[in-house]
This record gives sequence, structure tokens and C-alpha cells, in this order.
Amino acid sequence: MSVIDQLTDEFARLPGIGRKTAQRLTYHLLKSSPEEASRLARAIVAVSERVHACSVCGNLTEQDPCAICAGVRRDRSVICVVEEASDISAIERTGEFRGLYHVLGGRLSPLDGIGPGELNITSLLERIGEGSGVREVVMATNPSVEGEATALYLHKLISPLSVRVTRIARGLPIGGDLEYADGVTIAEALHGRREL
Amino acid sequence: MSVIDQLTDEFARLPGIGRKTAQRLTYHLLKSSPEEASRLARAIVAVSERVHACSVCGNLTEQDPCAICAGVRRDRSVICVVEEASDISAIERTGEFRGLYHVLGGRLSPLDGIGPGELNITSLLERIGEGSGVREVVMATNPSVEGEATALYLHKLISPLSVRVTRIARGLPIGGDLEYADGVTIAEALHGRREL
Repeated sequence: MSVIDQLTDEFARLPGIGRKTAQRLTYHLLKSSPEEASRLARAIVAVSERVHACSVCGNLTEQDPCAICAGVRRDRSVICVVEEASDISAIERTGEFRGLYHVLGGRLSPLDGIGPGELNITSLLERIGEGSGVREVVMATNPSVEGEATALYLHKLISPLSVRVTRIARGLPIGGDLEYADGVTIAEALHGRREL
Repeated sequence: MSVIDQLTDEFARLPGIGRKTAQRLTYHLLKSSPEEASRLARAIVAVSERVHACSVCGNLTEQDPCAICAGVRRDRSVICVVEEASDISAIERTGEFRGLYHVLGGRLSPLDGIGPGELNITSLLERIGEGSGVREVVMATNPSVEGEATALYLHKLISPLSVRVTRIARGLPIGGDLEYADGVTIAEALHGRREL
């Protein structure tokens, strides 16, 4: 197999990249400068060699603990629970949350064989236990069936501890259209209505 | 800048890859095995280091001349002229062409500053000159305005030589729909009609 086909195969293995796109990417690299290609290759190697999970929260990081866990200006009394490390950057981009995070590494999904044992739940309970100073845990798992089930399960586990458990609001997304929203979302939006 | 952001930036530089897709690709590599990531990195380096243009036809290849130019079973009396090396693989996949190729490296486009001097035209004329044994040149430039202009320009250059110049047929694509086809395509399809 030629190196061109090999690279096309490797690109096509990536999520959301079909055969045609993989080919276009390969030919793009063939036409671009060797520097550009080697910069991409180096970035891939660097990410896979230097990035690992933060030993405290599970965030992907080059240092340990991660910049958020080590941050002196973060509010250590609030922990936001997310499914994946990529959710952290989505929340951080808003600039609206100053607390800490905890990455579950997935969500409860019995059909896929993912039970509580597969998620980073023990470490979460250790972080919010007696004397930790944590006052609130924000459940920011996805608003899917599995995400909701995971949030409810964790709520049950945590409620014996004297820690507040909250859930991010569901409702209509900004720029969304009532006409095209599904019934459950509209119901949740009505249910969660607030004073103007 | 973190290596995660660096890789996302490099991915986002690729054609057709937006910010969100770049991020998804980065997180995919973060979750996949180091072997998978280094395989992709190696393939990128290999392509940029080992692949170059064939000195005869301009096809992208690891050997020189390329497998097609060196092929003993190719028909050396026909040369198919294409804009880019990637067009060769599209034609080769059909298995319908047994001749040789010539890559122009683009098409005439005065607005982008691409004149005859920027294309591999001299080498084409050398290949089809006196005593070359070439009987036919198939113009397989794209059916765009620039592609047509390039084909016509080359036709004029080549016609003094005793070589047949043909143009790939235009018409409705297989699976296409008359109702949605543009007028020029339908006109070309009618004009190029053949006996059943």
C-alpha cells in the first residue's frame, strides 16, 4: 500500500471523516509545505505523549494537577460534574463557572456495559466527603436519557452527605425556535420558568 | 498555548475542517491509543517526505517515474491531461483508461495570476512531439469555465502537431435528475447524444 493510501486510511479512521474528505486532506498535505505537515504530525505526537488525565479531577492536562485544580482563584466549594473532559472546555469558554470540575469518564449506560464501576465515582465521593469544604455539586451531565439517569444516581449517592446537589437548567437553546423544539424541551422550559 | 489547542489549531487549518470538528478530532486522538496517534503522525510525515511529483507526468508518487509511467501494460499512444494529481486516482478507479497521464498542476485562471507559464505545458508538448508515438491527447480538465478554457488553449497549441485531441464528454451524471440539472448540462447532454 502506498503512503498516500496509508494516510488516507488513517484520516478515514477519524470520527466524522469519510473516504472523500480523507482523500482531500491527504492531497492538501501533499500540496502544502513539509513544515506544515510536520507541524501537524508533531502536534499529534505531543498531544498523545504529553497529555494525560488530571489525577484530581480527570481533566486532560499537561501538568498534574491541572491548571483548574491548581488555580488559586477557583472556588473550591463547588464541583461541577461532567461526562467528558471536552465538556470542561465548553463550560470554561463561557467564563460563568469559577468552581472545580470532576470528569466521570462517561455516563451510566447498562446496555453498553457501563455501570457505576466504570465511572470515576469513588474519587468524586472522596473529594466531597467530610472536611472537604465542598458545599455544592453541579450535575452537568448531558441532557440525554443516560445523562439524566447518571445525575439522578449520583444525587442519591451524594444526598446523605451534607452537600447541595444541583442540575444545570434545561430549556430552549438561545436562537432556538419554539415551533421546532421537541415537546420535552418545551415542557422543561415551561417548568423551569423564572421571574423576569 | 497548550498542546491540545495547538493540535486543534493545526486540524482547523486543514480544508473543510471547522473549529468544532478540529476539537472533536483532537479529543478523539486524546482518547485513542498512543499507537493510533503515532500511526497517523507517521503517515503524515511519510507522505510529506517520501511523496513527490513524477518527473515524467507530474503524478504524485514514491518512485520515479511513477507506477503508471513505468507500467509495461499501459498504452503509450494516449495521454490524458488532468489538472491535479488527485484527478488521476479518480480516473484510475474507473479502470476504463489504460493510457498515460499528464498533470498540468492547475488550470488557466488569469484572475488568479495563473497563465500558461505556471502550468506544466512545455513538458506536455515535449512528450507528444515528433517521434513520441503519441496519437491522442484526452483533455480531462474539469468541466468548469477555466477547465474548458484550458482545454481549448491546449487544443490550439497541439493541433499543429499530428495528434488527435479529444475532450471527455459532458452530460448528465449517473443518478442525476433532469429536473434539477442546469441548462448548460442538459444542452451538452443533448448535443452529445449517441445511438442506442
